[in-house]
Amino acid sequence: MQKSLSVYDSDGSTFAPLVVIELVSETKEEAIAWLLNRVRDKQQDGGAELLVEQLTPGAQGTEKDNPNVYVVGASWQRLLYGAEDVGLFKEFNDGSMRGFTYANKHNFKEFQGDGDGFLSMAECQYIIKHGLDNLRAKDEAHVPGYPKMKLYPGKSVIRRMQSKGVLVQVFPLHEKEELKRLSFSWFKKIKLSFQPLDDIRHYFGEGMALYFGFLEYFTLALIPMALIGIPYYLFDWEDYDKFTVFAGFNLVWCTVILELWKRLSASLAYGWGTLSRKKAFEEPRPGFHGVLGVNPVTGRAEPLYSNAKRQLRIYLVSVPFVLLCLYLSLYVMMIYFDMEGWALMIHDEEPTFWTGLLLFIPSIIYAVVIEIMNLIYRYAAEFLTGWENHRLESTFQNHLVLKVLVFNFFNCFASLFYIAFVMQDMVLLRQSLATLLITSQILNQIMEAFLPYWLQRRRNKKAHKRMIKTMEDKELPLSEQVKLEADMSTYLGTFDDYLELFLLFGYVSLFSCVYPLAAVLVVLNNVTEVYSDAFKMCKVFKRPFSEPAANIGVWQLAFEAMSVIAVVTNCALIGMSPQVKSYFPESETQLILWVVGFEHFLLASKFILTFVIPDVPKHIQIKLSRLEFESLEALKKRKMLEASGIPKTAK
Amino acid sequence: MQKSLSVYDSDGSTFAPLVVIELVSETKEEAIAWLLNRVRDKQQDGGAELLVEQLTPGAQGTEKDNPNVYVVGASWQRLLYGAEDVGLFKEFNDGSMRGFTYANKHNFKEFQGDGDGFLSMAECQYIIKHGLDNLRAKDEAHVPGYPKMKLYPGKSVIRRMQSKGVLVQVFPLHEKEELKRLSFSWFKKIKLSFQPLDDIRHYFGEGMALYFGFLEYFTLALIPMALIGIPYYLFDWEDYDKFTVFAGFNLVWCTVILELWKRLSASLAYGWGTLSRKKAFEEPRPGFHGVLGVNPVTGRAEPLYSNAKRQLRIYLVSVPFVLLCLYLSLYVMMIYFDMEGWALMIHDEEPTFWTGLLLFIPSIIYAVVIEIMNLIYRYAAEFLTGWENHRLESTFQNHLVLKVLVFNFFNCFASLFYIAFVMQDMVLLRQSLATLLITSQILNQIMEAFLPYWLQRRRNKKAHKRMIKTMEDKELPLSEQVKLEADMSTYLGTFDDYLELFLLFGYVSLFSCVYPLAAVLVVLNNVTEVYSDAFKMCKVFKRPFSEPAANIGVWQLAFEAMSVIAVVTNCALIGMSPQVKSYFPESETQLILWVVGFEHFLLASKFILTFVIPDVPKHIQIKLSRLEFESLEALKKRKMLEASGIPKTAK
Repeated sequence: MQKSLSVYDSDGSTFAPLVVIELVSETKEEAIAWLLNRVRDKQQDGGAELLVEQLTPGAQGTEKDNPNVYVVGASWQRLLYGAEDVGLFKEFNDGSMRGFTYANKHNFKEFQGDGDGFLSMAECQYIIKHGLDNLRAKDEAHVPGYPKMKLYPGKSVIRRMQSKGVLVQVFPLHEKEELKRLSFSWFKKIKLSFQPLDDIRHYFGEGMALYFGFLEYFTLALIPMALIGIPYYLFDWEDYDKFTVFAGFNLVWCTVILELWKRLSASLAYGWGTLSRKKAFEEPRPGFHGVLGVNPVTGRAEPLYSNAKRQLRIYLVSVPFVLLCLYLSLYVMMIYFDMEGWALMIHDEEPTFWTGLLLFIPSIIYAVVIEIMNLIYRYAAEFLTGWENHRLESTFQNHLVLKVLVFNFFNCFASLFYIAFVMQDMVLLRQSLATLLITSQILNQIMEAFLPYWLQRRRNKKAHKRMIKTMEDKELPLSEQVKLEADMSTYLGTFDDYLELFLLFGYVSLFSCVYPLAAVLVVLNNVTEVYSDAFKMCKVFKRPFSEPAANIGVWQLAFEAMSVIAVVTNCALIGMSPQVKSYFPESETQLILWVVGFEHFLLASKFILTFVIPDVPKHIQIKLSRLEFESLEALKKRKMLEASGIPKTAK
Repeated sequence: MQKSLSVYDSDGSTFAPLVVIELVSETKEEAIAWLLNRVRDKQQDGGAELLVEQLTPGAQGTEKDNPNVYVVGASWQRLLYGAEDVGLFKEFNDGSMRGFTYANKHNFKEFQGDGDGFLSMAECQYIIKHGLDNLRAKDEAHVPGYPKMKLYPGKSVIRRMQSKGVLVQVFPLHEKEELKRLSFSWFKKIKLSFQPLDDIRHYFGEGMALYFGFLEYFTLALIPMALIGIPYYLFDWEDYDKFTVFAGFNLVWCTVILELWKRLSASLAYGWGTLSRKKAFEEPRPGFHGVLGVNPVTGRAEPLYSNAKRQLRIYLVSVPFVLLCLYLSLYVMMIYFDMEGWALMIHDEEPTFWTGLLLFIPSIIYAVVIEIMNLIYRYAAEFLTGWENHRLESTFQNHLVLKVLVFNFFNCFASLFYIAFVMQDMVLLRQSLATLLITSQILNQIMEAFLPYWLQRRRNKKAHKRMIKTMEDKELPLSEQVKLEADMSTYLGTFDDYLELFLLFGYVSLFSCVYPLAAVLVVLNNVTEVYSDAFKMCKVFKRPFSEPAANIGVWQLAFEAMSVIAVVTNCALIGMSPQVKSYFPESETQLILWVVGFEHFLLASKFILTFVIPDVPKHIQIKLSRLEFESLEALKKRKMLEASGIPKTAK
């Protein structure tokens, strides 16, 4: 924990600031006072029992600075109770992971003295966020001073103030020393090594660490493929016969790596204590609105929105919109093929170096257009999914992921499918694949890391024209640090990062048998991706709140769906290869039947394999069962003691 | 509860007998005394705290009767605590289903007075069985009087005595009055009506009730198909064109009924309190043996058997054996086709009525042979799976089901597949299907209900030659009833019943589009099946212990796998129909590609549909979430109270 920074509490003691709350500068005094009181109130009185103090502007404070910035902390006791409350799992004395309880605290491995240093800063911040989010209105009808900001008993105060725009943001503070150490071991040192996943998890939480773990795993899993792909390129193996071997390898590879990832992710999640953690009851998402009614599950007053209405919105607006976009994408693809034909015509008429270069232009333009369409569609999808008014964040996310995946998949791969199976032009397929892959990678790196960094540098320079303070500055006072961090961009979650990996996985698994160098390119991309992602997490973005996660969630499913599609395309590509065709010289029907039979066999094997390989490694399964067994035994014992205390007369 | 029968306890009070324990007649006195003491001991002393008494032989007792028959009962308190122990769910005052707790007993709906009548007899018997199974050895090294019957701390006493043959059987008693009422409403009254599922569950438990529920559901689901099938037969629609429509209907039907069954089964299981019931920790199955070691999960002494050895047995013995059997089945199939060709030849030479009849002979012989092979294989599979030495009953069952399913599927359908896709002879396919279906149904009914009944009648007549007492006799004394029931056959579980349904489902879903009358036959079969199964449960077999079940388990998976195979076969049959072929007059390749594309589309839709339709109906989902929410809130409240009791000084 960061001891250097501390602010004075109202009773004169100091506390370490963990989370920043920023209200708009013109917030009414009474609302601020009310909010601070609620945050400070004892938990049995419905408060959050946290420590909160206004940030005193530093020496360089100008009049333009927003005065309504508050830092939040908590006593160690509150944090430990909070850890039990949010269901944190920690390592027990016997090496197993157990749900932390305050009463049992001394039996946990790293608990020493008063428990200072037992919780990581990210965990403390998560606990504070949980406390703030669960600050609920009691009998207030509205936020004091804002008659229009309606409240009802049980409504989360922070969420309401945020959705009405009075609360600008709540974000956790960076810890400079730890960040510096993490940066160094993650991306600053030159030595080739694995990523410090445990440190990443310690600083950014499990969700982020699992993303980086998956990125690393995916890259390593690609290396055998890349190694096999290199000789194809070096020796110019142009015959498609050899690609058949590659396709066969592809199929086995896809299934196996996804299954093994599940096991690896279970191991990681067990070590981080999120594997057996129970999901808390899910609140309505902040954007959800509806007529006030009674939730049939909780019995609490809550906005309700008819499911039928939502279904209508989905099926009458969203689905047609997605279909329209798919049609548009198809239309753009056709324009691309026209351009392609036109470039080829010019090149054929009088081939020079420049016309040779011209051949690549349509693909590059198409790749850029695809990226732009994906981007625009992404905003549209977010708007539409928000408008569908889902009650839970998780269903919102699922609908959003589904919308974005379908379009991105179609947009990125439609042209390749068309070239492969309608035009059956393997040379063009290879060329398109290469251009798409390289262009989209370059664009992505620019959009993801370079652009935000550059924008932020520019903004920082403007704001602090005279005195340029950066995070690297050791003597940076708290108020300056908060100001700097508040201005950083907000990280919007791992969605885009996973999406990018998903598309890369598609390029490799669907078609790489005609372009074996794809794996090499993806490996190279992933290595730079690790560095640029690490860089943006540490330098470009505000620190995100840590998200406990036991697996990569819906993305596992998406990758598995892609690997099923890969079986189909690879079988088709094998069936189209001259080598296989030569086995059936007289009958094309025979060939197709054999290929279809083979494909069905592979699909069946794939499903059986998924079923047979256990998702959790044996040694972790044993540890989990032991915990379960112990709790069952404890329950039995308690009941037996209770039972023996009651006299038995009636028989 | 049966009040009429009661035996005197050792302290003079009476108790209602629920379960019978039969030991071999020459069991040593000291072993009996020790066992009875352990059964009677208090739970905190490691006993089962049950009431047990030797059965006093009735007036007609002969010397040949086994004296070592004991009846077991329990006090109401013991049963109520037991209900909490086994995790019984009961209807709460507010209409929801909750885990029963003794402390909270008065808040349950049907709890009146001292709780007499609150638990059904089947539930009481289940509780007693649980108590007996959990009677564990303390520091005894062997069963007294039997130095070879080794025990170790924690070993289930009953299981050891049963596996060593000293304990002949443990079975629950029938309740004559209730059985009579149930028989009447189930199969004796003439009126057409649904089965009394709740009464069946009340008497036989959830596992059995779910089987009968599924049987009924399956029959009802077949009726639309049967109705569509009848005109095909009546109007002699011989053109395969119309069958295409039928195949299309088939595909939708299979998927939809299986999905809906999941929802229906969840509703039933919720109402019976088994849906959210937690699975208890699973003990090693009785037949499991190995070197004594320490279980890594429980820390208890337990036989251990190396997983590697088991895998070797599976892959080096069981798998080759199954493959050999499949080859044998293929060989028999080929002989059948030879016979078929021979019969056809004779008929063609000089067709008479008798040679016309001769045409059916090979199919009938083949059907009989298939049934016999299935039966023999069943025993072999059971032996092999036992020899594989699985630790848990559930894995044993899964391996057994898998072995039996693969062989039965192959044995029953291989010839049909051969006729349909290799010979492409639709007339022969229809004829074979009809013969197989009808013969196997007749055989099944005989083997399942008639044979055991007849054998038992014969046995009973022999044993009680002079005085024929039956279960119908009102004045039957307890000792006579126990004697009668002990001689009844033991019901071996729902395995065979489900297997039969599975094969019928295969006949209907895979090929019925060429023989639409199949559905009609299966409906007729199922109606008689309900009656014969009900009859055998009530009259032929010993009462089985009730098995709590939340769904039909592995069979759901088996039926779903069958419906996937049905998509493939039906698409192929559609592709082979002259009507569809006529759309692609010039190119067979085009036709195949279209059919394959269509099939892939259907398979994808099927998986999406399985994913989209929620497995649990909304209103039950709400009830389940409410329970979960309440327990979370209660936990939070308890923690908050605990937390507020501790002074907070350190900040």
